[in-house]
Amino acid sequence: MKAIHVGLCGVGTVGGGTAAVLKRNAEEIARRAGRPIVIKIAASRDLERARTVCGPDIEVVADVMTVADHPDVDIVVELIGGTTIAKDLVLRAIENGKHVVTANKKLIAEYGNEIFARAQEKGVMVSFEAAVAGGIPVIKALREGLTANRIEWIAGIINGTSNFILTEMRDKGMSFAAALADAQRLGYAEADPTFDIEGHDAAHKLTIMSAIAFGIPVQFEKAYLEGISKLDALDIKYASELGYRIKLLGVTRRRENGIELRVAPTLIPHKRLIANVDGVMNAVLVKGDAVGATLYYGPGAGAEPTASAVIADLVDVTRLATADPENRVPHLAFQPSAIANLPILPIDDVETCYYLRMDANDKPGVLADVTRILAEANISVDSMLQKPAAEQVDGRADIIILTHLAVERHVNEALARIEALDSITGHVVKLRLEHLHG
Amino acid sequence: MKAIHVGLCGVGTVGGGTAAVLKRNAEEIARRAGRPIVIKIAASRDLERARTVCGPDIEVVADVMTVADHPDVDIVVELIGGTTIAKDLVLRAIENGKHVVTANKKLIAEYGNEIFARAQEKGVMVSFEAAVAGGIPVIKALREGLTANRIEWIAGIINGTSNFILTEMRDKGMSFAAALADAQRLGYAEADPTFDIEGHDAAHKLTIMSAIAFGIPVQFEKAYLEGISKLDALDIKYASELGYRIKLLGVTRRRENGIELRVAPTLIPHKRLIANVDGVMNAVLVKGDAVGATLYYGPGAGAEPTASAVIADLVDVTRLATADPENRVPHLAFQPSAIANLPILPIDDVETCYYLRMDANDKPGVLADVTRILAEANISVDSMLQKPAAEQVDGRADIIILTHLAVERHVNEALARIEALDSITGHVVKLRLEHLHG
Repeated sequence: MKAIHVGLCGVGTVGGGTAAVLKRNAEEIARRAGRPIVIKIAASRDLERARTVCGPDIEVVADVMTVADHPDVDIVVELIGGTTIAKDLVLRAIENGKHVVTANKKLIAEYGNEIFARAQEKGVMVSFEAAVAGGIPVIKALREGLTANRIEWIAGIINGTSNFILTEMRDKGMSFAAALADAQRLGYAEADPTFDIEGHDAAHKLTIMSAIAFGIPVQFEKAYLEGISKLDALDIKYASELGYRIKLLGVTRRRENGIELRVAPTLIPHKRLIANVDGVMNAVLVKGDAVGATLYYGPGAGAEPTASAVIADLVDVTRLATADPENRVPHLAFQPSAIANLPILPIDDVETCYYLRMDANDKPGVLADVTRILAEANISVDSMLQKPAAEQVDGRADIIILTHLAVERHVNEALARIEALDSITGHVVKLRLEHLHG
Repeated sequence: MKAIHVGLCGVGTVGGGTAAVLKRNAEEIARRAGRPIVIKIAASRDLERARTVCGPDIEVVADVMTVADHPDVDIVVELIGGTTIAKDLVLRAIENGKHVVTANKKLIAEYGNEIFARAQEKGVMVSFEAAVAGGIPVIKALREGLTANRIEWIAGIINGTSNFILTEMRDKGMSFAAALADAQRLGYAEADPTFDIEGHDAAHKLTIMSAIAFGIPVQFEKAYLEGISKLDALDIKYASELGYRIKLLGVTRRRENGIELRVAPTLIPHKRLIANVDGVMNAVLVKGDAVGATLYYGPGAGAEPTASAVIADLVDVTRLATADPENRVPHLAFQPSAIANLPILPIDDVETCYYLRMDANDKPGVLADVTRILAEANISVDSMLQKPAAEQVDGRADIIILTHLAVERHVNEALARIEALDSITGHVVKLRLEHLHG
């Protein structure tokens, strides 16, 4: 049967991995797809590297648009990243009637609506399994494996860098700064780690999952982001004593009046399987009304894990290319005409449980004041822990409170009142807590 | 767009769940599939129950063949179980050019080759996501999500009954008999639990996963089965002291000269995520050469979790129905012409690590005898534990040995020699041990 011709744009880490796996497993892939899937042409600014990666038989060019315009290319693979050239490339490929496979989470999370609309008009597919959680086929699970379900929520550990840092902080009692330095030394964090540790990367991935879970447009600009750089090792310790782990967790939840979409350091009961996902690994927990909770775990980054997802998309596109376009898997899981306009809720309207830590005078009446303020804000206390202050200041104590479900706005109002108490020093630490019941 | 008409055969637990979810989530499902998926006719020996389950608008018949022959039925859903009527029904539906969705693991594991060959000839699809691990979309992950990979091995906790019993035995220090009684009281085990506790059910599922992972025919008759009914609580305790959990684990592994296919109680390091899958939950760990290890976790049984998988198949069939049959996902993941005839290895040729426990005289020289015999059989010792005999017989000790990789035949030969020693009483307990390195 006729081979499928791929145009590979970008031969960095993932591009190199994709070329390597397509070559090494050529026979295995053809046994599945029913035809060979081969790279016809590759584009890179670094022609020498491209030639080394692709071998002598593949045409190599400097301009990605040459690939988008190449008459023999069936599928354009976009692995250059960013949202400038990558966006132009993807739109040009679509205009030329070519299918696209991309690993670019930023592009999809920020420009997905425009790209999918254009692809729909031209009758081509844009696949992006590699954009979320690397090698874990979680886009497939959400779009195809759980189609029977009304999805209720998704909770994901979807940034390996942050998870590595948090694992080091807990296992070795390290500070954030020391754990970050470790991660950088080991190549798990960039020299400028902002994108990973402040939640941008996780929010891109979460935005995509949220759209395909609930049938809404991608709306990255409305996601709430809170990173781990201000996380105190002390809170990891207290959380642990209370039976919780702290993870940088992406949570998107369907509520009656809209969708929650937030990335933040979050307590999870240590008994949950997802609380035990450590190091650079990723995991996504999905709650559907019929199936209950299912979890998808694996490597969220790296050359060959990401290549695995890129190539799975190539095989899928190969298969679905002959299907009536109206019967293909919709880009956002739901038919374009059935996309809902449920709003993304502002963080003030989010409802979850909270971990609160405050530095208090160790005097009678303080707890009474604090709990009275919480009660007046309609926030009920799940459990409480009082400890001599970690800094060992005489007459001071750390008070840790876990709340039941409460609305963020009410919590903030109560915290302002608590912080105004004479007996409380400085800011109250506020972290979110998710029970993640199956 | 025209609705897809389903003929539902069997309205027991899963059939009832399927009808309920199709109705409750009708809108959500149609938003995804692009058209309604509705039950046109249902068949059951219990007409009254069928009418209650399906409501007044759906035709109900006693004879499943009426459904297979019904001109308005697009997809026949087989949920009656067994391999007699179910097999006839599925083959008849295929002859009639209808697609089939089934949750019947026994039927697929034992007659899949014949069924898929006939479906291929007639150009129809037979889908079976619900046959393995209930609501977890692991068939989809293996057939479509990991197509880039040469699969190296799969390890699965795929029988909820057994996993519940083993969890009770460990958590509460119970005997097998007591834990089984608990499981029966809670409805997790049948009155005759043989099928679950002796590994048949797990082996059916493992056989199916093995076929689609390696591109071989289903060969249930060659699977090795060892159940948990003879498992001693003492070994769970010793395993725990050594840092392992015992799970009824299905393992299928590609070796140079064939495929391992075995279900047995198996030690797993407790640090592995899959070792922490407890109660009735299921999980499948898959090792691919590109992606590394990915894990799929969720409810492996139950009305709505299984219905979730059945309905996902209905949506898939709806989508792929218009694709060129040569481009559909092949039944066994690989093109029929590319199915390999790698043999299933006999258990004697399996290579794994072992846990050995023996009842020994607590005298000098015993350990020397035992370790000499192991060395002569080329079995190297990973670690060893000696304890005063659990039964507290004076002068006797329990010796526990964990081995490195060894071939089962060599282990059996060594054990025969060890059991013949005067200083060893009774049989040596032999369990397999898998490190499951990612």
